[in-house]
Amino acid sequence: MGPHPAVAAIRLAVRRVLHDVLTDLTDSRTPGAAAPLVLVACSGGADSMALASALAFEAPKLGIRAGGVTVDHGLQPGSDLRAAEVVTRMTALRLDPVESVAVRVGREGGPEAAARDARYGALDEAADRLGAAAVLLGHTRDDQAETVLLGLARGSGIRSLSGMPEVSAGPGGPGRTNRYRRPFLQVDRQTARKACMVQSLPVWDDPHNLDPAYTRSRLRHEGLPALEKALGKGVVEALARTAQLSRDDADALDSWAADAEAGVRDADGRLECAKLYALPPAVRRRVLRRAVVAAGSPAGSLFARHIEEVDRLITGWRGQGAINLPGRVEAQRQGGRLVIRQG
Amino acid sequence: MGPHPAVAAIRLAVRRVLHDVLTDLTDSRTPGAAAPLVLVACSGGADSMALASALAFEAPKLGIRAGGVTVDHGLQPGSDLRAAEVVTRMTALRLDPVESVAVRVGREGGPEAAARDARYGALDEAADRLGAAAVLLGHTRDDQAETVLLGLARGSGIRSLSGMPEVSAGPGGPGRTNRYRRPFLQVDRQTARKACMVQSLPVWDDPHNLDPAYTRSRLRHEGLPALEKALGKGVVEALARTAQLSRDDADALDSWAADAEAGVRDADGRLECAKLYALPPAVRRRVLRRAVVAAGSPAGSLFARHIEEVDRLITGWRGQGAINLPGRVEAQRQGGRLVIRQG
Repeated sequence: MGPHPAVAAIRLAVRRVLHDVLTDLTDSRTPGAAAPLVLVACSGGADSMALASALAFEAPKLGIRAGGVTVDHGLQPGSDLRAAEVVTRMTALRLDPVESVAVRVGREGGPEAAARDARYGALDEAADRLGAAAVLLGHTRDDQAETVLLGLARGSGIRSLSGMPEVSAGPGGPGRTNRYRRPFLQVDRQTARKACMVQSLPVWDDPHNLDPAYTRSRLRHEGLPALEKALGKGVVEALARTAQLSRDDADALDSWAADAEAGVRDADGRLECAKLYALPPAVRRRVLRRAVVAAGSPAGSLFARHIEEVDRLITGWRGQGAINLPGRVEAQRQGGRLVIRQG
Repeated sequence: MGPHPAVAAIRLAVRRVLHDVLTDLTDSRTPGAAAPLVLVACSGGADSMALASALAFEAPKLGIRAGGVTVDHGLQPGSDLRAAEVVTRMTALRLDPVESVAVRVGREGGPEAAARDARYGALDEAADRLGAAAVLLGHTRDDQAETVLLGLARGSGIRSLSGMPEVSAGPGGPGRTNRYRRPFLQVDRQTARKACMVQSLPVWDDPHNLDPAYTRSRLRHEGLPALEKALGKGVVEALARTAQLSRDDADALDSWAADAEAGVRDADGRLECAKLYALPPAVRRRVLRRAVVAAGSPAGSLFARHIEEVDRLITGWRGQGAINLPGRVEAQRQGGRLVIRQG
């Protein structure tokens, strides 16, 4: 008799990703080198405990060492004890090395963003120090659906609908382009919970997940269920598919805009309004966004409405003055050219 | 003292659209021709009554005749009496001509789609017969937000997120490309209701709007409010902006795919797998979709998962057999070429 279907599903998802990790390593590995290490980022919740169990099961079969890291955010009293408990649980799964890393969560960008920044900083540091080939993250299809809805609420276009990627670089950037992997983006939360249950794995429910002060938590416990009730059970899957399609579309349009940018500049490198006008609106707005960011406007503060206003210098020209943009950047039209510079 | 802000807002929205209608007519009008006619499609609900009132106010100032059509769907007992009442109300607004058109709603595509098809058929017929330059529709920003969520639930990509266009052709197709206009896509439902109230316009609430058997109604009364509670009051605006951005993005990618298609065919017009492989995934999938539709697959039955399967003949080739697609269309890979044909 094979494993329970939920356990089979999580193992299959992890096995696929481990194969990808090995494929990526093929070029760079020296013969006789030590077995590569793959870490799981584990909070002790059901998703990441399921992930840890599947990694512990699959890695040895592929000649991979499986380790685990838990991050102590220090946000609740006793969080250190809990981190120690997660270390014990990961050790019980025979992960090795296993460690707990304490971080200090700042305030920048709100509580969720600050916790995330601190967490990835710690994971990056641990991965570097331990020489890990990859770090697995337990985000499920449900998390992905929530991320798409959060992006939708920003109303800033398809890039913000594209959710979390299956593979992404650490904040450390180049050289570690494939560090983070999310094997469970096609696995639903219910499957992860079920896999823990049938394997008798103790799981810990993050109190933040039930705290309605957190937007994501409100979405999870109220918004998404109401949407499912109105639109049917397929909503989570539809949102996850939307993420993938939007990501590919956004990538294609970004590459088009990068190509187009050279063609709309005059000999002195200035943007020509007539040539911008001839571009499809979707491409033109991306070219403008690139130019505004290049001039020093912080990408995170630049909203669709800013770019729309700059776009009106091209499509709705009626002699309007300079437009002020985040980061003290100004855009104005001068003699058929668009001048964008920091003041 | 000027009009109430809600009344000012709906009039401004209509005035802008009437200007656009006149601009479009400039080329085709003969001097001395009769004043152009603009119709409002009016159900007697708040949105379209507000629209009718604004049209009645603005049209004469621009030398436009304002008329109205109400469609009797015959779905409830007494719907004919109600249609007659809407005619009376439109006449009281001094719209002229004003008429009620009875339709027979079929069953194809579900109750909502069937009612819509019957309605547009009747509006098209009336517009042709009365020689109208445009037909105004009362869809608000809230309707747009609902449409985006309905598209999201399909999970079929950004085209289905692009909602309703501000300007669209009648089902009659070419020659009437700008027939339908939606002046209220940036106006919220609350403003339309308020405008009716302060103008003492009687409005009729469509019982379907409160019938939870209708998906859109469930979305309106449960799904969207829950989403707003979770994500904040800006959700409707964010969804409407997503519609516009997605529409532009989808248009740009469609045009890219149309351009790319010629370049990936060999001298005999067959699709070359190697050249398809080199395209960005978003463009390749659109080229494949075009080819499958051109081979006879009905666009409405062709889902993202079909195209993904065809795409795997290019990106994940491992000798798989022919793929069956809607409309008895088959796709298979033969000697480095993709052959798509109806069986």
